[in-house]
Amino acid sequence: MTDNTFGKLLNVTSFGESHGLGIGCIIDGVPPKLPLSERLIQPYLDRRRPGTSKFVTQRKEDDKVEILSGVFEGKTTGTPISLLIRNKDQRSKDYGEIANQFRPGHADYTYQMKYGHRDYRGGGRSSARETAIRVAAGAIADMFLKHALGNSYQVRGAVIQIGPHAINRENMKWSERHNNPFFCPDAAMAKQWESYLDGVRKAGSSAGAILEITADGIPVGLGQPVYGKLDSELAAAMMSINAVKGVEIGDGFDLSAIDGSLASDEMRAGKSLETPTFLSNHAGGILGGISSGQQIVVRIAIKPTSSILSSRKSINRDNKNVDVITKGRHDPCVGIRGVPVAEAMMSLVLADLLMRHKAQCGFGDL
Amino acid sequence: MTDNTFGKLLNVTSFGESHGLGIGCIIDGVPPKLPLSERLIQPYLDRRRPGTSKFVTQRKEDDKVEILSGVFEGKTTGTPISLLIRNKDQRSKDYGEIANQFRPGHADYTYQMKYGHRDYRGGGRSSARETAIRVAAGAIADMFLKHALGNSYQVRGAVIQIGPHAINRENMKWSERHNNPFFCPDAAMAKQWESYLDGVRKAGSSAGAILEITADGIPVGLGQPVYGKLDSELAAAMMSINAVKGVEIGDGFDLSAIDGSLASDEMRAGKSLETPTFLSNHAGGILGGISSGQQIVVRIAIKPTSSILSSRKSINRDNKNVDVITKGRHDPCVGIRGVPVAEAMMSLVLADLLMRHKAQCGFGDL
Amino acid sequence: MTDNTFGKLLNVTSFGESHGLGIGCIIDGVPPKLPLSERLIQPYLDRRRPGTSKFVTQRKEDDKVEILSGVFEGKTTGTPISLLIRNKDQRSKDYGEIANQFRPGHADYTYQMKYGHRDYRGGGRSSARETAIRVAAGAIADMFLKHALGNSYQVRGAVIQIGPHAINRENMKWSERHNNPFFCPDAAMAKQWESYLDGVRKAGSSAGAILEITADGIPVGLGQPVYGKLDSELAAAMMSINAVKGVEIGDGFDLSAIDGSLASDEMRAGKSLETPTFLSNHAGGILGGISSGQQIVVRIAIKPTSSILSSRKSINRDNKNVDVITKGRHDPCVGIRGVPVAEAMMSLVLADLLMRHKAQCGFGDL
Amino acid sequence: MTDNTFGKLLNVTSFGESHGLGIGCIIDGVPPKLPLSERLIQPYLDRRRPGTSKFVTQRKEDDKVEILSGVFEGKTTGTPISLLIRNKDQRSKDYGEIANQFRPGHADYTYQMKYGHRDYRGGGRSSARETAIRVAAGAIADMFLKHALGNSYQVRGAVIQIGPHAINRENMKWSERHNNPFFCPDAAMAKQWESYLDGVRKAGSSAGAILEITADGIPVGLGQPVYGKLDSELAAAMMSINAVKGVEIGDGFDLSAIDGSLASDEMRAGKSLETPTFLSNHAGGILGGISSGQQIVVRIAIKPTSSILSSRKSINRDNKNVDVITKGRHDPCVGIRGVPVAEAMMSLVLADLLMRHKAQCGFGDL
Repeated sequence: MTDNTFGKLLNVTSFGESHGLGIGCIIDGVPPKLPLSERLIQPYLDRRRPGTSKFVTQRKEDDKVEILSGVFEGKTTGTPISLLIRNKDQRSKDYGEIANQFRPGHADYTYQMKYGHRDYRGGGRSSARETAIRVAAGAIADMFLKHALGNSYQVRGAVIQIGPHAINRENMKWSERHNNPFFCPDAAMAKQWESYLDGVRKAGSSAGAILEITADGIPVGLGQPVYGKLDSELAAAMMSINAVKGVEIGDGFDLSAIDGSLASDEMRAGKSLETPTFLSNHAGGILGGISSGQQIVVRIAIKPTSSILSSRKSINRDNKNVDVITKGRHDPCVGIRGVPVAEAMMSLVLADLLMRHKAQCGFGDL
Repeated sequence: MTDNTFGKLLNVTSFGESHGLGIGCIIDGVPPKLPLSERLIQPYLDRRRPGTSKFVTQRKEDDKVEILSGVFEGKTTGTPISLLIRNKDQRSKDYGEIANQFRPGHADYTYQMKYGHRDYRGGGRSSARETAIRVAAGAIADMFLKHALGNSYQVRGAVIQIGPHAINRENMKWSERHNNPFFCPDAAMAKQWESYLDGVRKAGSSAGAILEITADGIPVGLGQPVYGKLDSELAAAMMSINAVKGVEIGDGFDLSAIDGSLASDEMRAGKSLETPTFLSNHAGGILGGISSGQQIVVRIAIKPTSSILSSRKSINRDNKNVDVITKGRHDPCVGIRGVPVAEAMMSLVLADLLMRHKAQCGFGDL
Repeated sequence: MTDNTFGKLLNVTSFGESHGLGIGCIIDGVPPKLPLSERLIQPYLDRRRPGTSKFVTQRKEDDKVEILSGVFEGKTTGTPISLLIRNKDQRSKDYGEIANQFRPGHADYTYQMKYGHRDYRGGGRSSARETAIRVAAGAIADMFLKHALGNSYQVRGAVIQIGPHAINRENMKWSERHNNPFFCPDAAMAKQWESYLDGVRKAGSSAGAILEITADGIPVGLGQPVYGKLDSELAAAMMSINAVKGVEIGDGFDLSAIDGSLASDEMRAGKSLETPTFLSNHAGGILGGISSGQQIVVRIAIKPTSSILSSRKSINRDNKNVDVITKGRHDPCVGIRGVPVAEAMMSLVLADLLMRHKAQCGFGDL
Repeated sequence: MTDNTFGKLLNVTSFGESHGLGIGCIIDGVPPKLPLSERLIQPYLDRRRPGTSKFVTQRKEDDKVEILSGVFEGKTTGTPISLLIRNKDQRSKDYGEIANQFRPGHADYTYQMKYGHRDYRGGGRSSARETAIRVAAGAIADMFLKHALGNSYQVRGAVIQIGPHAINRENMKWSERHNNPFFCPDAAMAKQWESYLDGVRKAGSSAGAILEITADGIPVGLGQPVYGKLDSELAAAMMSINAVKGVEIGDGFDLSAIDGSLASDEMRAGKSLETPTFLSNHAGGILGGISSGQQIVVRIAIKPTSSILSSRKSINRDNKNVDVITKGRHDPCVGIRGVPVAEAMMSLVLADLLMRHKAQCGFGDL
């Protein structure tokens, strides 16, 4: 992961700004002969699309992706796949005021100081709009993994907390995610979030969230110790998503507080050495940086949207004090639309590591 | 960060196993003319050295580092610096039993399944012994940063929680860390940990910990969005440390629960645009993946040492159920010696990003 | 340089096929505040454009480049720059026959065997059409170098041999390149090539070429020994151009045959240590992999276009013998249009190494 | 290939100076379960060892390699393999004079200007002594390829020209290489070189050479277009060897002069699509950057040793004119000992590309 390229073998290089001509990426290293078309990618994008409920930004983008290369007669050719999404609904005039002042919590100040010149419209490159293209790239990784690992493979994400309101894990049903606009797996909590977020929205404020992303059907062996560990790659991937401020694997921070005798996951023999029974999964499916064959479990903390309607103290480019009110159209809780993005990053990490594993360990007994 | 190489411009490639001939690394990309000698590196290593108190492993290693290349007449030459620490006190006989069985919570099972052949002695490559060489490499990064950034630069780490016992932040004094064997900045809590860990040790169990690592004197501008963000690189670096299961930046997971109006850090004009006053630091010194000039704040969760003396259920290489008792000499709380390691990773990330920033943004007005 | 990405700090990832929707690239790492627009890039592309004389392919492409990102108000922002050239004049029907048979000398057979699925139209990804986007990327590198190094910097390329006919170096005048369709710096030889290539074209055959590319105004110090040597990077860059089969630096192969006392370049003191006088330049401006401050000199050998109208023995996908006649529109000598491509690669290598040098050696006395 | 790391998946990071404590490397990515020991590597090193005849340097180094990690019970474990060769016979006093003056043709001037501080003894990092460790690393790549590709796989190198004296290809017998100290495959020419080099040596001068390196048994499909082409990687690898100034693939520069109808290699059907018969091999076994299944053929030009006993004009660090006579012990023709080095680089490139191919194309029909 360096600068604008993510991944080592299956790698994604992205481009684009919030209010520029569009966003896109080149995905290199995709295996050949994978069925692929715009039609297959679109459903992934639709899950992240803005404007789908009152709890996300009202910007209208159809997020139609165009495949510019790397696919021939409906299948990948092994050459780079370029994806392009043209921006449609840029209302840059909303941003005239921020050309010369820095919105607190945003990247306005740091981009200005780092580069000396920035596309301030809608946050430019620092906007979460860039994550749409991650979802498109992640779709390809997901489809590759489905073909390579079979039906038991599955990546799923959910919002498990919004503001101070966490789901009740006993009520957790993955299928419930599709029945509410929050990717919430707890039907009762979804109701509660609705009224909570209505309040937040009306107050001109915003809320944070915690997301959980899991992967099933991952074979033992993925992860390249010691610096390309599966948990390390996941942490980098998740922390690269806008507004994410924390990542934990398995029981994460809670593990710090419990006794060693309770912390590790005991094993019992299964049908084969590849399929033992683990009596718990505190480690989140990763031991020594390598997948154990258990479910991979990651949780991420997302801060409240920094763009809020109440006035905030800041400075401008002339180094004068100013008060900033962030207009524009914003998600009251960016965490919600973060779900498909985090799923995409999970898929991209796993696909890349599957290929790296294959490269080194795929030669059998030498 | 891929496999055994960490960093892009200032990069470290490490090698070695717990009970092999030794551990070492090659550090490439270090700027020339930096004063360097074994004598300058050794104090960093001494802080992590085993056998220094009853709360860490009793393995006796003097951890004397040898510089094999890249330094001439006391200064770096810009060519690769190779560091070597010979192992001394390998008691591999302690590990005979684990050749064929898998210790729960350890990487025994995953290494065996990934590679089909492993050096099981003391965990081999998966042992935290590897982290000694990170400390040596981090020492070089730290010295480079001191020269490049000046006296305000400082990286510091502390243990802020062991087991369920967190420090009282009102009592926090960085200087206090040097007065106890726990890198604890709260004198009263250090006392409490002493008796708590005595109990843990006598019970043949282990404890987890939470560490906080900060960096001061970091100029605005470090971090390469969107995938080489400062927080992303830090997360990868920290999560690559053995037993780390969680990483957060600034207020981290707590940020998810608070109102948006409280979450972002307001600004007031300072002497120059480079030195504004921030009214808070919820973001931990990073905005949009780029350092803001504030203190960088990272916290990591470390799970309890998996090697404990009580019997644990597991399987062996013949896929039979077995009970495992882990002998050998172990840290009752690996988090303690994690402090200099986490500091080293912080320094390595910052040094690498400083060079990457210089490369792209060091040409002035074009 | 890996797969479809070229360069370490200033890196280019390209995509696209000869008869797909278009070709393009993402250039990451460009310093901010560099003046940039389509208008500034276009002249570089026009030098390589097809259809400009009867000695190059008659395919009609206007090669208009579109900047999709990374530029705001006429200047680079330091974020990735995406370039797109839509294909216009794809006559894919010319290629129906090669769907199932392999043109000798082309990549048809190797792509089919490597990937199992290929876009055969016009050679797909293996077509020299991809080089148009290198020219566009190289234009940005060239403009960056002009700003960073000043007026003495200059990259120039010329054809110095076509078929068996080499220029007379005593007649060599760089300015002459602009007066003929061959980038030939020897007016008399240009005339000769015209009649020679007319004959080749009419015979339905093709001709090879040797190109020379030089760089002036390059300061001493560029190149990263030992595997990122300037000559090593140049060799990789040049050999990645379609049809190139040989690369030499300075006197190259001729150096093998001369006496050691004649081979190295003696020095005399100049105004400063940075500007010595070299009494010769056998080494082509590179010593130990690092630029010496002299003119950089590279020569490359380009094989004759493999697409010729005479019948050639080959096989098809059913492993049957076939005779192949390559229709379509082709350059009788691909070497000619290779000049702007090779110049672009030279600029890209130099810009990348300038940034790598800055990153490591730009911190002054530590 | 960047700075001191070579390769993407099977990568080698080297360190060490001519007169430092030693040279070494870390090889990362080697597949597990490959039989490996010092005893297996040593024969490769012995072929390159100094002091074996009067035609190579008289420095006495036994070049005994020590494996520090990555091997357990005689087999690789998939973790990084560190190799170390301690220097023995450093006669640094021979080099006192060059501390402050620059030997023409050497890297003294460029290292000084790039880094501002250099280990001048024996050329420091720029010395060909570094190539010993490439040979050791290449030995591992070669053994891996033998296991992975089987008995038909073979990499061979020979000197085919010394000074102006080229072998007669009709007399070429690979086995003859072992019967003379020149790796010469032409018995008659070996005799002639002996007297020629005697003259060169006595005159205090030196000679250049041309080497040919081939690889047999390479399957179709290795090489990652468009920037990771097999020929591009080979060119970079070969050009990174000290004193190499030219690289060509197949017929190389000669291809520029011949007619297109003679340049490409016609095909006839063989037993299967994987094993066609090519009627010639002008392309040196590479089409479109991908191995064709034919013999890979590379030739490299090596300049005469720059260290000669006759006086040469130069300057010193005070920017004064000086006359330099290079004492020390030197190869009259460095090309000779370049053979095992070039073979090693060939093996390293092929092993890396085999793994990269496996990673992307090893998943079968998706």
